[in-house]
Amino acid sequence: MAKNIKNDAITSRDENFAQWYTDVCRKAELMDYSSVKGFIIYRPYGYAMWEQIQNYMDKRFKETGHENVYMPLVIPESLLQKEKDHVEGFAPECAVVTRGGVNELEENLIIRPTSETLFSEHYAKIVKSYRDLPKKYNQWCSVVRWEKTTRPFLRGSEFLWQEGHTVHATEEEARKETLQMRDIYLETAKDVLAIPMLTGRKTDKEKFAGAEETYTIEALMHDGKVLQSGTSHYFGQGFAEAFGIQFLDKDNKQKFVHQTSWGVSTRLLGAIIMVHGDDNGLVLPPRVAPTQVVIVPIMQKKEGVLDKAYEMAEQLKKQGIRVKVDDSDKSPGWKFSEAEMRGIPVRIEVGPRDIENGQCIVAKRNDGKKETVALDEHLGDYVINLMNTIHDEMYKKAEEHLQAHITHSEDFNEFGDILDNKGGYIETYWCGDLDCEMKVKDEYQATSRCYRPDEAKEDAVCPCCGKKAKHIIYYARAY
Amino acid sequence: MAKNIKNDAITSRDENFAQWYTDVCRKAELMDYSSVKGFIIYRPYGYAMWEQIQNYMDKRFKETGHENVYMPLVIPESLLQKEKDHVEGFAPECAVVTRGGVNELEENLIIRPTSETLFSEHYAKIVKSYRDLPKKYNQWCSVVRWEKTTRPFLRGSEFLWQEGHTVHATEEEARKETLQMRDIYLETAKDVLAIPMLTGRKTDKEKFAGAEETYTIEALMHDGKVLQSGTSHYFGQGFAEAFGIQFLDKDNKQKFVHQTSWGVSTRLLGAIIMVHGDDNGLVLPPRVAPTQVVIVPIMQKKEGVLDKAYEMAEQLKKQGIRVKVDDSDKSPGWKFSEAEMRGIPVRIEVGPRDIENGQCIVAKRNDGKKETVALDEHLGDYVINLMNTIHDEMYKKAEEHLQAHITHSEDFNEFGDILDNKGGYIETYWCGDLDCEMKVKDEYQATSRCYRPDEAKEDAVCPCCGKKAKHIIYYARAY
Repeated sequence: MAKNIKNDAITSRDENFAQWYTDVCRKAELMDYSSVKGFIIYRPYGYAMWEQIQNYMDKRFKETGHENVYMPLVIPESLLQKEKDHVEGFAPECAVVTRGGVNELEENLIIRPTSETLFSEHYAKIVKSYRDLPKKYNQWCSVVRWEKTTRPFLRGSEFLWQEGHTVHATEEEARKETLQMRDIYLETAKDVLAIPMLTGRKTDKEKFAGAEETYTIEALMHDGKVLQSGTSHYFGQGFAEAFGIQFLDKDNKQKFVHQTSWGVSTRLLGAIIMVHGDDNGLVLPPRVAPTQVVIVPIMQKKEGVLDKAYEMAEQLKKQGIRVKVDDSDKSPGWKFSEAEMRGIPVRIEVGPRDIENGQCIVAKRNDGKKETVALDEHLGDYVINLMNTIHDEMYKKAEEHLQAHITHSEDFNEFGDILDNKGGYIETYWCGDLDCEMKVKDEYQATSRCYRPDEAKEDAVCPCCGKKAKHIIYYARAY
Repeated sequence: MAKNIKNDAITSRDENFAQWYTDVCRKAELMDYSSVKGFIIYRPYGYAMWEQIQNYMDKRFKETGHENVYMPLVIPESLLQKEKDHVEGFAPECAVVTRGGVNELEENLIIRPTSETLFSEHYAKIVKSYRDLPKKYNQWCSVVRWEKTTRPFLRGSEFLWQEGHTVHATEEEARKETLQMRDIYLETAKDVLAIPMLTGRKTDKEKFAGAEETYTIEALMHDGKVLQSGTSHYFGQGFAEAFGIQFLDKDNKQKFVHQTSWGVSTRLLGAIIMVHGDDNGLVLPPRVAPTQVVIVPIMQKKEGVLDKAYEMAEQLKKQGIRVKVDDSDKSPGWKFSEAEMRGIPVRIEVGPRDIENGQCIVAKRNDGKKETVALDEHLGDYVINLMNTIHDEMYKKAEEHLQAHITHSEDFNEFGDILDNKGGYIETYWCGDLDCEMKVKDEYQATSRCYRPDEAKEDAVCPCCGKKAKHIIYYARAY
């Protein structure tokens, strides 16, 4: 039996986490760079992970009454400027089209950095009466935000995402929608990505440009830094007033709609890599993995071995398992390393002696454990159960890592130590003032990730100013 | 029982086909205009039709070994210029980004009009050996081509499409791929859209910029004009040489790859509308219809009627049928008209007396025929069979229309009469000279749609120049 070859093609995580991340992205063939800085190529394996996430989420969106649409790629400059806070947030990041065909354009067009303005303009046209409400639209697309510093999946000048935009007759309904979508994001993270999230509200400083309230989900990476992984916004009536989205209500009065938007992006791929990966490469949660099981034939030139491998693959496919046989002419050890680099959750080894004994060896990518399993009609069920176990184990490990890295502190002076030596979140109190939030940022380069309004205990004190605290807040260094 | 209300909200087809088309696009809520000319909004109903087409084709692509990727939205001007014919074809239609963030760009970026150059650059990086071949990639995205005259779905400055790009070790394999994908397009048209296509090769004048050979599928609209609906290109080694896509072959020699690309777009929605629609609106083939069955409760306030309608819907859903109950407070006649405008293939009416008699009325959108059907466990099977029948009937009707509008003529002087009075295709002979092709265009405003190389009969004469003909060619007026 070929031995497991340690994959030393990549930097170790603890030596240089940033380099490890880039190595994994390249060696697992998730992406490649294009000739335009910040615009990456989503290679088949990386894109297939995104497709798995899309499939799950799209189904959830549709089950909850959302419809997909496609809005234009470009926004007239004047349209983007209609909502004041919004344009201030996005203007510095815009890619601008100034020529179309052979002519200079009369008005510059912005490649969408996000589409609130387009949806708002459309809703203003099609919403007339309470009968037209709610409208709950979503779109899958790419957006462009001109970034100076870029990293694959984490920050790019172009990224893939979904953006949901809804309008409602009442504030209550819109607020409910905002939280419902945040909850669907939490469930996706837990049930598909095997990632526990910290959730709460963004402070005014950190919230979305134009939003009244932003809810966020935040994931803790292996290196103790945090990645904002999805947001859901309640807009109140700001866009509705700016764009004139009005309806005639049942009481015969003209009213402005209440609006939400929410989005997650291919950043989620970055989260998967950095939460679960190890020094041998990717470790994929089974529900995201494009290939869930790789069958590696041992001594594949011996008669019957490859046939058996194909037969097993057919058997697993019938039960809906995404399986591949690695029948290339590489050595088994090499195949093992490749499967590890690509994070394939389950590896099955089968050779002549196994076939003779009516068994195969099943290895788990997440912890390397192996078991001998009978080659019979229960193999598919075994693998399905095993994948559920792997998912649960991966979630549990990430959850333990998260819990071990939320440090409660009420002493401003020890924040630096915690961030430098332990990483993760500082859980503390907050009076609600921007100055105190900025003090943490300026002193320790940590930002507020989210806060929980009015959850501070009775006698809590803001560690930044010493005044009475209202909220619980979480600070961390973030991507 | 409410009577069918003739929908006179739209222009009739024979009065003004162009206006009828625009009316249907708007009233069936397929699309809306945005504030940027040529950039349309794909509304939920129109987008859902595209999703049905995507689902089918994506499955076919994957079954035939293709993988999805995502390439950057923008192309550096210098990269687009690498293949001479290609840039000449697309330069006049480019949307140009000249500013990113707060800075003017050092090099202008073109929003992709098509992505041959990006795929070629990437393939040049990742293909090293015959072991890396073939690479068969596809992407679903939008592209931008600055158009002066635009019409919803048919010609827009932005449209949605898929573009496949493959590289192969041998010419034979690449040519096979080109035809395989054309065949998948033909099958999609037949089996999903219920549209028969005329297929053949594009002349050098009409082929894709940079292609050696272009195969096309062309659909005949109700008004006798033709719509190019999909193309598949064999590139030979032109791009490979321009971009340096080389591999070390088994014989230890460096060789250039052989390349293909192929695409269909949301033009297919235009084809569906204009092939099948009638004076009451859309008529959708069941496999494209976002809603396949609408249940209209009659006297829905009577106890038990709505409950029965919901129960029937659940029953049909379980069999995979896309069904909706129209429980709005509109009159049944109004609901019928709406369902007709939206082209829903099957309408089921159920009222108190029907329920008493254990039956319902099932009406077909394509020919208006109705039947009384028992309300029992066979209803789902009945509907599934009925939808297959509808599909076949729609295909047959379109096929008859097509056959009746291919007019064989060998007399240049009668081309005008045929095109003016009958429309459709003129099937004739061609010597192969551009001059003759141009003569038809200049004289009759008809373009060559496709030709069949070397299929002319022995003594055939080109009707344009009187010389010996080699090919059969099809001319038509086209969208």
